[in-house]
Amino acid sequence: MNKYWSRRLAGLVPYTPGEQPRDGVFIKLNTNENPYPPSPRAIAAMKDSADADLRLYPDPTCRDLRAALSDFYRVTPEEVFAGNGSDEVLAFAFPAFFDPARPILFADITYSFYPVYANFFGIAYKTLPLDAGFGLPVDAFCQKSGGVLLANPNAPTGKAVTLSDIEKILAADSERVVIVDEAYVDFGAESAVPLIRKYSNLLVVQTLSKSRALAGLRVGYALGDRGLIRALETVKNAFNSYTIDRTAQRCAAEAIRDTAYFCEICENVAKTRDKTAKRLKDMGFRVLDSKANFLFISHERKHAKALLRALRAAGILVRWFDHPRIDNFLRVTIGSPAEMDAFCEKIEAFVR
Amino acid sequence: MNKYWSRRLAGLVPYTPGEQPRDGVFIKLNTNENPYPPSPRAIAAMKDSADADLRLYPDPTCRDLRAALSDFYRVTPEEVFAGNGSDEVLAFAFPAFFDPARPILFADITYSFYPVYANFFGIAYKTLPLDAGFGLPVDAFCQKSGGVLLANPNAPTGKAVTLSDIEKILAADSERVVIVDEAYVDFGAESAVPLIRKYSNLLVVQTLSKSRALAGLRVGYALGDRGLIRALETVKNAFNSYTIDRTAQRCAAEAIRDTAYFCEICENVAKTRDKTAKRLKDMGFRVLDSKANFLFISHERKHAKALLRALRAAGILVRWFDHPRIDNFLRVTIGSPAEMDAFCEKIEAFVR
Repeated sequence: MNKYWSRRLAGLVPYTPGEQPRDGVFIKLNTNENPYPPSPRAIAAMKDSADADLRLYPDPTCRDLRAALSDFYRVTPEEVFAGNGSDEVLAFAFPAFFDPARPILFADITYSFYPVYANFFGIAYKTLPLDAGFGLPVDAFCQKSGGVLLANPNAPTGKAVTLSDIEKILAADSERVVIVDEAYVDFGAESAVPLIRKYSNLLVVQTLSKSRALAGLRVGYALGDRGLIRALETVKNAFNSYTIDRTAQRCAAEAIRDTAYFCEICENVAKTRDKTAKRLKDMGFRVLDSKANFLFISHERKHAKALLRALRAAGILVRWFDHPRIDNFLRVTIGSPAEMDAFCEKIEAFVR
Repeated sequence: MNKYWSRRLAGLVPYTPGEQPRDGVFIKLNTNENPYPPSPRAIAAMKDSADADLRLYPDPTCRDLRAALSDFYRVTPEEVFAGNGSDEVLAFAFPAFFDPARPILFADITYSFYPVYANFFGIAYKTLPLDAGFGLPVDAFCQKSGGVLLANPNAPTGKAVTLSDIEKILAADSERVVIVDEAYVDFGAESAVPLIRKYSNLLVVQTLSKSRALAGLRVGYALGDRGLIRALETVKNAFNSYTIDRTAQRCAAEAIRDTAYFCEICENVAKTRDKTAKRLKDMGFRVLDSKANFLFISHERKHAKALLRALRAAGILVRWFDHPRIDNFLRVTIGSPAEMDAFCEKIEAFVR
């Protein structure tokens, strides 16, 4: 910090992304990446589009990508917004829908980027505590507010809420926007996308980083009533007209169109998750019921931080959060079956 | 606009990017793209990096790309920030360095995104009129202010200022940040990069979209004192941790390293520009002295808007701005020699 920093930056605590080690010696179970490669069709499209046309600006409206998304979700292209990762889509949503003086609501334990966005854009917020079992306090979320932001499944717990709970929150105060962050929905939770026509205050945000195995591509999107989508477009055009490069648009569209591959890898991850959960429970772990591509676990005798260090020394990266209530938990991404075998063997040795 | 839009969005007029036609039948001289393809090495690097590793997040610190930039500009990597296009870098700079209540300065005729950023981030600003010859009013820019933003060469005029004028502005008030937007500098103006060690309040912003022929890639960067760079990093990490995808990082680094190709295409564009300028003057055009990859022209008899329409009907896109003082000008991107021959022939027929 020096004298040239704005007042806005003073005291702003930025988000800390998970470690991206530069060598490949680690088993990386720390940033919820997919263990499977992206769709071969998506990679082929990317290679194919790396050509002389890169001299030209991309389509700022991402027409073809939005067409692919609207086909997949059976909505119109006007109900789709595409951005440079779902983090950017969420960042745009704050100034689009929330006002400084009307506090928005999110859980005390959820994606830790939410308070960062709020502080950056000067939006007041109130956190609502998850219950003792880390369930969403649905009734508390029904109170009137400047907006609601919830992750389903939640991160880092992995726990999902039902659509009827989401409808209850949507209907309780139709004057505010409810954002449902579905980054992990494809691994087993119910998507709220079918509700966007019923609730014009619902914005669903998804990403290609997890279930489409394209974290390296940076594409996310939002689905909602066209009035909401137009607000996101307005923010985008006040910030950066061309957010997704030419090759990424092509690659992402092809990934969305390859439904068979998408279904297959999601199923594989879910199977590995459920198998891993069972093994961990047998070792004395508390394992929250996860509908995501990660498990949130705590051991009855060994402290999470000790396990984090022991795993790292053994070449396995997992994620630990230095937050109240969850500092005795580890978030473990579901890797390949072989990676999870290695993980289970190591951790079993540590807790035995 | 509907009831869910925030107050911030009410009345916000977003930037309008130049037209990106979806068919290839136009000669596109409207968005200042490079007529030459990107470096073959850059395209090869992109193809090569489109692989299974796209499942993994990119390096959020863009280490290799920043290394390439720091080698090229002979600065340290800590003096380099990379973003998703220079538009994003500029967008980050507003909340990083400017405070709402202290008006910043920019020219009345300059890149039309500047007032959009200012309005979006709630930063007050004061526009200073260019002189009758569209020159920068250097003394006026020396007044104390919350910050300064200037394009060199300026857009859409193409006119450059000298480094000594920039130094005058930097030194006049060392308490504020001066951003020099050098999107077009490589086509003939003097870069302020060598001044970043002398003035810790100087931020230079550049892009790969113009001189590196990579508008489709979305990579821009800033060079400055590490205190300024850290501010940009803080904003980025309060907004979107991973702004540049894996393949774009590789492609951009390789483009920066291919110095010979870069020099060659810049020279070619400058030669075509100067030749085109001469021809247009012979046709009775006023042609501002351009150091950029475009010309800003006005005809003594034919109105710019009529020419815009006639050119479009003839399959040639150029840019016209509906702004006071410049609404009788056209901004014409320098295309290939063949494209400029076609342009000159058509426009000569219209003004004859």
